[in-house]
Amino acid sequence: MGRWEPNARGRLEQAALELYSERGFEQATAAEIAARAGLAERTFFRYFADKREVLFRGAGELQELLVDKVATAPDSLAPIDAVAIALEALGAVFHQREYSRLRQKIIAANAELQERELIKLATLSTALADVLRRRGVAEPAASLTAEAGIAVFKVTFQRWIDDTNDRDFGQLVRESLAELRAVTAGK
Amino acid sequence: MGRWEPNARGRLEQAALELYSERGFEQATAAEIAARAGLAERTFFRYFADKREVLFRGAGELQELLVDKVATAPDSLAPIDAVAIALEALGAVFHQREYSRLRQKIIAANAELQERELIKLATLSTALADVLRRRGVAEPAASLTAEAGIAVFKVTFQRWIDDTNDRDFGQLVRESLAELRAVTAGK
Repeated sequence: MGRWEPNARGRLEQAALELYSERGFEQATAAEIAARAGLAERTFFRYFADKREVLFRGAGELQELLVDKVATAPDSLAPIDAVAIALEALGAVFHQREYSRLRQKIIAANAELQERELIKLATLSTALADVLRRRGVAEPAASLTAEAGIAVFKVTFQRWIDDTNDRDFGQLVRESLAELRAVTAGK
Repeated sequence: MGRWEPNARGRLEQAALELYSERGFEQATAAEIAARAGLAERTFFRYFADKREVLFRGAGELQELLVDKVATAPDSLAPIDAVAIALEALGAVFHQREYSRLRQKIIAANAELQERELIKLATLSTALADVLRRRGVAEPAASLTAEAGIAVFKVTFQRWIDDTNDRDFGQLVRESLAELRAVTAGK
């Protein structure tokens, strides 16, 4: 019933990321996050079910975007190229490199968050294989293409975070896929 | 201090697998597992730290075998072929198809066990990338090759469990790698 607060979600996210970085994910409390954002604790719980959700609320959106892009890619494309187009489109999601860097550091420091991240990727792989089968791709090609896509995603994400040349996410997707092609071909 | 029981570990594993299947992983207790194996509860804890370890005790051995095979593969081999040789060698571990089928069903029915399985695979991928770098493979090729290897492993394992033609694990590794090559090439 609280009054509307301008950009409450964004302020809470920023405050949470800062606190998780400074004191560790386990130590920070929802009350402290809200206080740093200049909001009431109940406002935190209006936006997020728990502390973890602040870091993973984008997972559903990410999956939806990927699945939708694969589903609507031209029929003429090979399955791996439909997946590549979908991954390149994630450039629209991954553009705040500093935010992603900070988030990744927080996750790397906490086993529970790492598990959650692994589950997110496994769920993504299953969703990709599903939509590929709906495109008519048989097994095991659908599962292998989905796993190859996740491999490209993981490596691209790490490269994008580490990148000092400011290459964008889409460009790194293309480079990583080219490398995956080379290594699987035995080059 | 208990007296030596012939094949206590094997009997406990068999009893645990049966109970986890019949009643679910959460419901079965160490005391019940021991009772079904005709052993005392303390004997269970002499072999396993907890109920979960019965299902995952092979993970370290699996990783050691893979890493060792990659490390000792001929230098002339492309990285992906060194990984393939290592995966084929897992045929020595994966030969009791019925046991693996049952284990997989138990894991699929329990979120906590699925997480543990995902962590196992992520750890395996990291270990493979490490040993590839020690072979002189640069990044991101090392990580991509490791991820490709895990993709082949996952798909091979599922095919091996589902296989009705009794193809062995090594043969399915070769087939899955050939398929991965085809899908990443865009065929």
